[in-house]
Amino acid sequence: MQQYEKKELKKKSENISDWYTDVVLKAELADYAPVKGTMVIRPYGYAIWELVQEVFNVMMKKGGVQNAYFPLFIPHSLLEKEKEHVKGFAPELAIVTIGGGEKLKDPLVVRPTSETIMYAMYAKWIHSWRDLPMLINQWNNVVRWEKRTYLFLRTSEFLWQEGHTAHETEAGAIEMQVQALEWYQEIYQEYYAIPVLTGIKSTAEKFAGAKTTYCVEALMPDGKALQAATSHNLGQNFSKPFEVSFQNRVGKIEYVWQTSWGFSTRALGGLFLVHGDDHGLILPPKVAPYQVVIIPIFKKGLEQSELITYGQLLTEDLEAKGIRVIFDKGDNQSAGRKFNTWEVKGVPLRIEIGEREMQDKTVTLVKRIDAEKFTIAKAQLGQEIMQLLDSIQQELFQKALEFLKSNIREANSYDEFKQIMSTSRGFIKAFWCESAECEAKIKAETKATTRCLPLDAVEETGTCIYCKKAAHHRWFFAQAY
Amino acid sequence: MQQYEKKELKKKSENISDWYTDVVLKAELADYAPVKGTMVIRPYGYAIWELVQEVFNVMMKKGGVQNAYFPLFIPHSLLEKEKEHVKGFAPELAIVTIGGGEKLKDPLVVRPTSETIMYAMYAKWIHSWRDLPMLINQWNNVVRWEKRTYLFLRTSEFLWQEGHTAHETEAGAIEMQVQALEWYQEIYQEYYAIPVLTGIKSTAEKFAGAKTTYCVEALMPDGKALQAATSHNLGQNFSKPFEVSFQNRVGKIEYVWQTSWGFSTRALGGLFLVHGDDHGLILPPKVAPYQVVIIPIFKKGLEQSELITYGQLLTEDLEAKGIRVIFDKGDNQSAGRKFNTWEVKGVPLRIEIGEREMQDKTVTLVKRIDAEKFTIAKAQLGQEIMQLLDSIQQELFQKALEFLKSNIREANSYDEFKQIMSTSRGFIKAFWCESAECEAKIKAETKATTRCLPLDAVEETGTCIYCKKAAHHRWFFAQAY
Repeated sequence: MQQYEKKELKKKSENISDWYTDVVLKAELADYAPVKGTMVIRPYGYAIWELVQEVFNVMMKKGGVQNAYFPLFIPHSLLEKEKEHVKGFAPELAIVTIGGGEKLKDPLVVRPTSETIMYAMYAKWIHSWRDLPMLINQWNNVVRWEKRTYLFLRTSEFLWQEGHTAHETEAGAIEMQVQALEWYQEIYQEYYAIPVLTGIKSTAEKFAGAKTTYCVEALMPDGKALQAATSHNLGQNFSKPFEVSFQNRVGKIEYVWQTSWGFSTRALGGLFLVHGDDHGLILPPKVAPYQVVIIPIFKKGLEQSELITYGQLLTEDLEAKGIRVIFDKGDNQSAGRKFNTWEVKGVPLRIEIGEREMQDKTVTLVKRIDAEKFTIAKAQLGQEIMQLLDSIQQELFQKALEFLKSNIREANSYDEFKQIMSTSRGFIKAFWCESAECEAKIKAETKATTRCLPLDAVEETGTCIYCKKAAHHRWFFAQAY
Repeated sequence: MQQYEKKELKKKSENISDWYTDVVLKAELADYAPVKGTMVIRPYGYAIWELVQEVFNVMMKKGGVQNAYFPLFIPHSLLEKEKEHVKGFAPELAIVTIGGGEKLKDPLVVRPTSETIMYAMYAKWIHSWRDLPMLINQWNNVVRWEKRTYLFLRTSEFLWQEGHTAHETEAGAIEMQVQALEWYQEIYQEYYAIPVLTGIKSTAEKFAGAKTTYCVEALMPDGKALQAATSHNLGQNFSKPFEVSFQNRVGKIEYVWQTSWGFSTRALGGLFLVHGDDHGLILPPKVAPYQVVIIPIFKKGLEQSELITYGQLLTEDLEAKGIRVIFDKGDNQSAGRKFNTWEVKGVPLRIEIGEREMQDKTVTLVKRIDAEKFTIAKAQLGQEIMQLLDSIQQELFQKALEFLKSNIREANSYDEFKQIMSTSRGFIKAFWCESAECEAKIKAETKATTRCLPLDAVEETGTCIYCKKAAHHRWFFAQAY
């Protein structure tokens, strides 16, 4: 493992963008790969993704969703069947033109998403209402071309899950669309400790081919929004061209109603951005690969092996309680250097053990979030740590929630809107007439896009912030990642 | 779910190849996808892969191996750095020549395996002996071009794990190579219930770029061998061109010693081939997505809801004991039809519940492996089922072991060799002089290739089955998938 001096780390409080790249590299979450636009997810970063997969698999399984695997390659001709969809993705495609030493007659698209290939199969599998709902998810890699890499946040290839369901009725599809949104909200709020806004996307911002797109939006410390997950009602937009039809309960042939929904490793970038500080990452305990690091303080004249035995027993005790622990027992680095390493990596709790702790049967505990330090009897340790991990998880969420709340502002004039967007940023609630023209102009002039309209938004009477024509809802606007 | 009549299924005893394709489709393990050479792994097939992943992750983690993720795309120029390696894979490559609407200057290869891209990163990450061993695995998709699909067994894209390790010494690398081989042997024997041969590959059959390849070989019912997994000692073949070097314990710069090892969804095909019968699949309990199916026998005049409650409670009881259960409670199919469906899918145990069972607080239990039927008191059920699952697992292994044993034959003349290969096939042990020429001629004339030389093979004195020159070892030969 490479070691980095704390002093080398750029400061989050000074330049968050430089800090972000620096901390992602130094915490060994990810690294740049040889091809522009690509990255490697290193074991420490991948372990977070595995934890999230585990949690999300349980949610999906309870909801009757099953995992499967569909091919990476989609014939270009298949992708063209849904016009809006292919138009939306065309500029981002990677295309295989040579296979097995021969030029291909029908070039193959490396999947940017799997609607088309999956629904070609659904057409084959679905015949009757008894085959519905069909609820399938896949965890895989997708490619959407990028020339520059912004680690996690923007890379050509990323990992995600994509759920694809088919239903007898549109009501059934919408229920699924909402369910997926709720799962995402839970992942973000309960696991990532990131409060989110949820709502519906504007026509310009929705998924290419969807009837409606629901989304989860998070706020980053620089006041920009991050689209954290999306859930689409596809209506019959795909089932018609792909001929996914079924015999309904009264014997009539109908097209199915569909949804698709996904979230990706891209949004892990948000997790790192939100909770870190000048000393490095701060990982919420529920998604931290290691929740506790144990560091022995060796001294001259002290028997190292005794301390190592003490640490080993502690490790086993905590692991038996289901706590994820690493015992950094090596003697080729100073304890101070180890402190720095694990601070950068954002491990929620550090346990220090030395001669005194061993004699007193205690440990010294340090919280990553605020550097608070205290001594605890070994006998109470497991219980204490579980409580601490819970309270840290809450504390991180509360901090992020306060930040979000204090960065949602109403703008009642375009001047006010521009003023906010050029200073503090954050989310702005503002009346918008829902015309694509005003939306495009606001984006061109302020870099802010419509993020969403809350699903429970009440109809109001107002005037569009831009054109001053009648408007019925206040939308959320923000500059976005 | 589509339903199939039992009578439709082709017979394994008559034509195993037709049976195989038929059963893979009808059990809904997989299906053909739109692009030639590709397939979809359906939920029932994917669930088996997920179970295997879980088991193998535990083994690897105990061995200190961590999961990570490296990019799908490898610059063609990077692949060319190890000459043997690129030569071996060149005919099978899928190449991306267009990205983001532009023709690429350096075409990108869709990974057929990840040595090159991973070791380009290892060169960046490894500096000192303290960074070693580096033990990284990834679960991903790889592409090796195929024009025809043979479900699971041969497809352009498949899923696998690839472990890639770097060590201070060659001894360390060989230890890892052996460890991986042992893991694979355990997966096959303990989980797939398939006895295997292990050994070293000949120069012609080893991995392109490896110094030595160890392998796990299984025998299929048609007498052909299936390469089930491989583990390579890469020596310094990659570390030199990729400049993966480190400062050793005495301050000298050295190249690392490496291994790579993998097994894939391809070998799942072997699992299905080995254990099925004329009625469909037979899944070993340890990798069966459902170990038990509960089927209610509805009758006129019987209260369905009571029976469903009885089945529901049974399901919960068994699930609480960690048994994987499905309760097929629908009333739109006859019980007989359900029996057929789950027989084809190879669920190890079927529980039938009807009026009598409900009154007597019993269940009727049927074993898939031999159709043995008996009645058990509900109170003893969990315990009984766990024992049955264990014994079925053993029984499947024993059957396969007997088949393997009776299909390993010694051939002492080439006539004898040809005679065996043109009738029963199976593994042949025969002296071979280890010249590539004899190996190639035997292959051309009999379709049999060298499969492996056991690691503990004793040196003997004999004459090559083909050229009659001196030979020191009896190698395993077989026709292979």
